Amino acid sequence: MSVAQPSVLPFVAAQPLVDHHCHGVLRAGGDLAGLLNEADGAAVADGMAFDSLAGLAFRRWCPPLLGLESHASIEDYAERRAGLDPAEVNRRFLDACGLRALCVDTGYAPGGLLSPAETAGFAGAAAFEIVRLEQVAESLAGTGVSAAAFPDAYRAALSERVAGHGGSGVSVAGLKSIAAYRVGLDLDGRRPADAEVVAAVSRWLGGRYDAGDDGHGGYKGDGGDEGGDGGTGEGGRVPRLADEVLHRFVIWCGADLGLPIQFHVGYGDRDVDLHRCNPLLLTGLLRALEPTGAPVMLLHNYPYHREAGYLAQVFPLVYADLGLATHNAGARATALLAEALEMVPLRKFLFSSDAFGLPELYYLGTLLFRRALSSFLAGRLDDGDMGLADAERVTRLIGAENALRAYRLDG
Amino acid sequence: MSVAQPSVLPFVAAQPLVDHHCHGVLRAGGDLAGLLNEADGAAVADGMAFDSLAGLAFRRWCPPLLGLESHASIEDYAERRAGLDPAEVNRRFLDACGLRALCVDTGYAPGGLLSPAETAGFAGAAAFEIVRLEQVAESLAGTGVSAAAFPDAYRAALSERVAGHGGSGVSVAGLKSIAAYRVGLDLDGRRPADAEVVAAVSRWLGGRYDAGDDGHGGYKGDGGDEGGDGGTGEGGRVPRLADEVLHRFVIWCGADLGLPIQFHVGYGDRDVDLHRCNPLLLTGLLRALEPTGAPVMLLHNYPYHREAGYLAQVFPLVYADLGLATHNAGARATALLAEALEMVPLRKFLFSSDAFGLPELYYLGTLLFRRALSSFLAGRLDDGDMGLADAERVTRLIGAENALRAYRLDG
Amino acid sequence: MSVAQPSVLPFVAAQPLVDHHCHGVLRAGGDLAGLLNEADGAAVADGMAFDSLAGLAFRRWCPPLLGLESHASIEDYAERRAGLDPAEVNRRFLDACGLRALCVDTGYAPGGLLSPAETAGFAGAAAFEIVRLEQVAESLAGTGVSAAAFPDAYRAALSERVAGHGGSGVSVAGLKSIAAYRVGLDLDGRRPADAEVVAAVSRWLGGRYDAGDDGHGGYKGDGGDEGGDGGTGEGGRVPRLADEVLHRFVIWCGADLGLPIQFHVGYGDRDVDLHRCNPLLLTGLLRALEPTGAPVMLLHNYPYHREAGYLAQVFPLVYADLGLATHNAGARATALLAEALEMVPLRKFLFSSDAFGLPELYYLGTLLFRRALSSFLAGRLDDGDMGLADAERVTRLIGAENALRAYRLDG
Repeated sequence: MSVAQPSVLPFVAAQPLVDHHCHGVLRAGGDLAGLLNEADGAAVADGMAFDSLAGLAFRRWCPPLLGLESHASIEDYAERRAGLDPAEVNRRFLDACGLRALCVDTGYAPGGLLSPAETAGFAGAAAFEIVRLEQVAESLAGTGVSAAAFPDAYRAALSERVAGHGGSGVSVAGLKSIAAYRVGLDLDGRRPADAEVVAAVSRWLGGRYDAGDDGHGGYKGDGGDEGGDGGTGEGGRVPRLADEVLHRFVIWCGADLGLPIQFHVGYGDRDVDLHRCNPLLLTGLLRALEPTGAPVMLLHNYPYHREAGYLAQVFPLVYADLGLATHNAGARATALLAEALEMVPLRKFLFSSDAFGLPELYYLGTLLFRRALSSFLAGRLDDGDMGLADAERVTRLIGAENALRAYRLDG
Repeated sequence: MSVAQPSVLPFVAAQPLVDHHCHGVLRAGGDLAGLLNEADGAAVADGMAFDSLAGLAFRRWCPPLLGLESHASIEDYAERRAGLDPAEVNRRFLDACGLRALCVDTGYAPGGLLSPAETAGFAGAAAFEIVRLEQVAESLAGTGVSAAAFPDAYRAALSERVAGHGGSGVSVAGLKSIAAYRVGLDLDGRRPADAEVVAAVSRWLGGRYDAGDDGHGGYKGDGGDEGGDGGTGEGGRVPRLADEVLHRFVIWCGADLGLPIQFHVGYGDRDVDLHRCNPLLLTGLLRALEPTGAPVMLLHNYPYHREAGYLAQVFPLVYADLGLATHNAGARATALLAEALEMVPLRKFLFSSDAFGLPELYYLGTLLFRRALSSFLAGRLDDGDMGLADAERVTRLIGAENALRAYRLDG
Repeated sequence: MSVAQPSVLPFVAAQPLVDHHCHGVLRAGGDLAGLLNEADGAAVADGMAFDSLAGLAFRRWCPPLLGLESHASIEDYAERRAGLDPAEVNRRFLDACGLRALCVDTGYAPGGLLSPAETAGFAGAAAFEIVRLEQVAESLAGTGVSAAAFPDAYRAALSERVAGHGGSGVSVAGLKSIAAYRVGLDLDGRRPADAEVVAAVSRWLGGRYDAGDDGHGGYKGDGGDEGGDGGTGEGGRVPRLADEVLHRFVIWCGADLGLPIQFHVGYGDRDVDLHRCNPLLLTGLLRALEPTGAPVMLLHNYPYHREAGYLAQVFPLVYADLGLATHNAGARATALLAEALEMVPLRKFLFSSDAFGLPELYYLGTLLFRRALSSFLAGRLDDGDMGLADAERVTRLIGAENALRAYRLDG
């Protein structure tokens, strides 16, 4: 299933991975520079994007799958890629990932993006959906619901989505909040009263909101905080949700359903105020959410991955990963993983690629993660810090079992 | 004295250590999982605690001292341990630590914990006491002193405690503040006026405080912010001290005595708001305290150990250590120590274990610290970054001399 | 040109460096301990300064250039150095740096400091000047200009300075803000209106400002925030500028000129409140400045060098370096550089020494930087992460081309 890699421990190379946070791939094409990392526009123009550790990793690992030498220029690569059947490109990279299951965030899905099932199909993996909490609210707002009816309507709409209605056709395994992009993570721990929510909805939708709207067509949530778009929804009828009370409200509604809730944390595109995305800012909310029993998944976390590990240690329902920092750091992913593992319980660390659009990003994410994990475990084995049985068990935990258990993917 | 370790430089292995911040060991028994790291309850249940780098280090290093193979399961280990005489367990681990002196924080001492002298006795080391500033205040509050009399009474009580009255029977070498646990480290630099203190005491003790109390029995400070308990003193008559003015007051009272003042910084249990425990938040207070001449010891510091090193560089009276992060990071302690040493003056870095309850934690703390220091120095020697004489001198400084000088343990 | 170093890749050793942020060297003498790192006074007394990784690096690398063995004691070193012609000391170290061009910050230039041209002359390098934005404002204030006239007068004065009038006689290549030292980096993004500036100038100069002053002699800006002095300008007639509105104003005036603007970020002397110097606090201002087209150079950044790399990734005009952290971390500079390169575009990372006063600091800065870069690239080459052509190109980019392009030094 996965391509053999020298210098990767055999049991790590052979471990099927559950990718608990990713996006669909594009049906065809894709802007290589614009999708490689979190920058866009002038920040990636003229080859800039590939002059980075991420770009060097891309050029090392991806060309051979298209029949080119490692370290081919990105121009040669793009030319070769453009000459191939797009489905064949998707198939080659995704098939080489060694994936068992994908949890696909459908909250940002511009035209041309394949569905969870289609994406997973290329990988020979099971597909699950992650529903974005704010996207459900923005969609609901587009239906013309009144502010007074919003709290109940949201709870109903979210339950419907979780039950699979109106979604991508696969089971919903978890939820996601992008509060980090909109208001930062300094969220109050209290569950907001419905009256507060009604007032916040009125503020949010205010005059720009036409209750007499016919309800069809209309709103197309941008949600483009991730994936290199960054559009802010100008032109849509519903302004994007960015209100501390409402983010809290949708998070609490999600927690009431008992599903794992993913939080974007740390590193992201330029819409993020990164100093407001330290996961420690969630401390009060994490304490408050604990009685709901809903797992909380801290995504990416860079450069706060040590902080995330600490939270996962002291809060029983908190999990962490390295997410998109893995492929973005290229050869440094190995060093980052070692830092991320310092304090985190090994039963609560997960793999995710946060791949979006390009099948190469799935491939790089899985490959760099396996290399990093293998390097970490090989060092421990060489030094006598753990025995082989423990190393194999840790690989199973982090590679798949932690995600299967937390998301109940086998249940 | 210390157990020979392959791959540790001989002069590091032979260096007696001064542990400038630790706690007593339990007379017998102890919850291995609950005491291993800073988590408790569900966060460590079902073996979770040992699925961590700390747990792997525990299972590598501790079983041989009980006659088991390295990497024995924690179940086998616990069974073997339960069959041994508890004093023998304490003796085996503490005797293998290579300790010269212990500075024991007595501010949290639940039943079953041995005294500083008893604990040090197992290690063949000298014992000193660290008095917790807030604990003296909470004890004083339990005597029924009026708010108006509090400032003078506190100064007198602290002087008494420092002189050895009412304590553990060994010399008091320093003081400690747990402001980090209670209000965070964003403390004003100003010394509070007595009138401010009186007002704060009134706020603190308010209606819950019976001035007519007979003064005996009664209050039993929980102080359980450390050591895995985390009790909040419910049921005690005196609410726990958590007031920025009062933390500042007791710190200034301590500084006036000229003794080293330890601050809990960074990593701790789930009562901590870790983002409020960045040592940089102390910057203003550190500037203000300088004229008192009292050394300030920044404990643990993870993940802010670089920040602590910076403070120790620019403020002449500030010292730093890695404390409980050492054994909690297991095999990663080596990497952390290298980071911690980047900016810190080598005359102002200290060793501490922050061990509590389990003699194994003393053993792991000293062992992982020596391995980390040895690895760092061996790398420098191999690369030619320092000569042998410097490496030996740095070992003496960090291992013992810095603490002996700062705490005047030989004076 | 540069001294051959074993274990440094030949193309890294041979790469001429552009030092985009440094200071002049002293004509003679210099307090070795006081200038080694960011501490002063009691914090470096009695050899303390040299008991550090910076001190160990100094003692390893500098003695051979004065004919002593590596690791000579600092006493022996100081004695040998005092017996040599000071110009010869400057020549030996600067000539061994392999420098192509220096951008010299002239904002803090106490007596005895050589000019940019004189300093660069010892290195056989081209000299450029960096004008400190706040110093121009403080000088202007000393002329007795009225608050009402200040905005226009500042714009005129800055244009004059940039055109080379009243400066050091070499071309002005960029500007610098020391807002970090004075008010921190949490600057509003908005360009202040002139009326706000006038009000702020009135606050700043208030009663301490004699409008009838004859305008000559008089004010002597301290600006001593860097370089180990830290004087606060007491005794000068003009209080030092420390007002969020005015820092913003001078930054916007600089940006309007289109020149690169350097920001002191992170690590500095004890006047800094380091937690207010996180470059992420600049996020709003960076967004706002983008339309001006002025490059923004984040200096030093430690311990926020990862954060700086992120900003350089997502903002097209932001650059980053490791600056004075390089020589201060000694043997750990290698580890720091690897962290700094994780997210930063390789076309936007620069070299700077932040050397001040001692020619040894230039030498250490260039030497440790080359060693760190070589170590990083050698690791990538050994692991197959990049090919030789890429490694050579990255060396040219980081070593010189990025600075030449951003500062238009060849234009």
